[in-house]
Amino acid sequence: MTTKPLIDLLNWRYATKKMDPAKTVPQEKVDAILEAVRMAPTSSGTQPFEVIVVTNPDVLAEIRTAASDQSPITDGSHLLVFAAWDNYTNERIDDVTQLNVQARGEIPLIHEYYGNLKNNYVPREAEVNYAHAARQAYIALGFALIAAADQEVDSTPMEGFDPATVDKILGLKERGLRSVVLLPLGYRDPTGDWLLAMPKVRKSNDTLITHVD
Amino acid sequence: MTTKPLIDLLNWRYATKKMDPAKTVPQEKVDAILEAVRMAPTSSGTQPFEVIVVTNPDVLAEIRTAASDQSPITDGSHLLVFAAWDNYTNERIDDVTQLNVQARGEIPLIHEYYGNLKNNYVPREAEVNYAHAARQAYIALGFALIAAADQEVDSTPMEGFDPATVDKILGLKERGLRSVVLLPLGYRDPTGDWLLAMPKVRKSNDTLITHVD
Repeated sequence: MTTKPLIDLLNWRYATKKMDPAKTVPQEKVDAILEAVRMAPTSSGTQPFEVIVVTNPDVLAEIRTAASDQSPITDGSHLLVFAAWDNYTNERIDDVTQLNVQARGEIPLIHEYYGNLKNNYVPREAEVNYAHAARQAYIALGFALIAAADQEVDSTPMEGFDPATVDKILGLKERGLRSVVLLPLGYRDPTGDWLLAMPKVRKSNDTLITHVD
Repeated sequence: MTTKPLIDLLNWRYATKKMDPAKTVPQEKVDAILEAVRMAPTSSGTQPFEVIVVTNPDVLAEIRTAASDQSPITDGSHLLVFAAWDNYTNERIDDVTQLNVQARGEIPLIHEYYGNLKNNYVPREAEVNYAHAARQAYIALGFALIAAADQEVDSTPMEGFDPATVDKILGLKERGLRSVVLLPLGYRDPTGDWLLAMPKVRKSNDTLITHVD
């Protein structure tokens, strides 16, 4: 943990295009990043996703092939695969209810709250529910990106992969999961990354933000 | 800026149910939160969303009515409305290309890169593109949540509102935007918030994370 100002972390991090394959992220740093993922808030506290941490070289090579041969997947030491629930089900929401009761006891209206959630979510199309779950995974992705920078670990958020193939490689469909975004973790190779020397490109405040005073 | 350990920020923050209407978040803290939003990475650097910062009491009251009367909307001092692009268009992607050229010069393949992006995105259904844009906004939401905690500012991520009504109140449709998530900023009212005394509920590592070694 570096305890640098947040803005310094945000300026330091970048979507690392070339990682040093000789370097391994220590387990305690991976754990701190995963802890940030676990602590990320989600809609109604459902945490409707899982994270698969891949370090197996053969599996990483397979995933790289399904991801336009992007090298950070194998040059990084750990790959986080964010996989959203393919649907909301009564069983999944009952598990969340149970977790709440375990942590907080039989607080008022807890069963009514999650009962309503089941009534609202479960009849919806699976695709709508998956889309909602995927968004929650992106909050956790944001947390992971900051936690990685905080640990002085490089990361590369990636959407450019074939989800159906990655799901097959990891057996996600059978578990009711769909891969939504990949996050290799590793260390930048300063000599091999064209992007590192480039200034960060961001829109101006005026473009991105408007005020209704 | 507090520079506390990240894990302390993640434990301190919670979805504040009752904010103190007498307290106002100082402008420099709001600016720091918005800067984190601006620095959040997005797919191909498109930053396909805008943030509307609402402080006008009448507008806040209207939005609260469209959001199941959730009090933090008016008890907080600032409301961030994350609004995603309703579609990817040639013009929007050309603007991003131009921004890259301004920041980095005519780097190799930049026009080819965004040309390909246009070829891939623009023919897709608007709903698919909006869903993709909305996910990017959620990365920025994650950044905003951590930045708020870093500023010792409370926040309440909210999906429980009628997007069509909020879009109408803020004139978003005419700007090609769709509201996806609200984030009131303010200060917790420790005497009025039943949730504050409750332990945080999160799944175990074993439930959320699996390893492929």
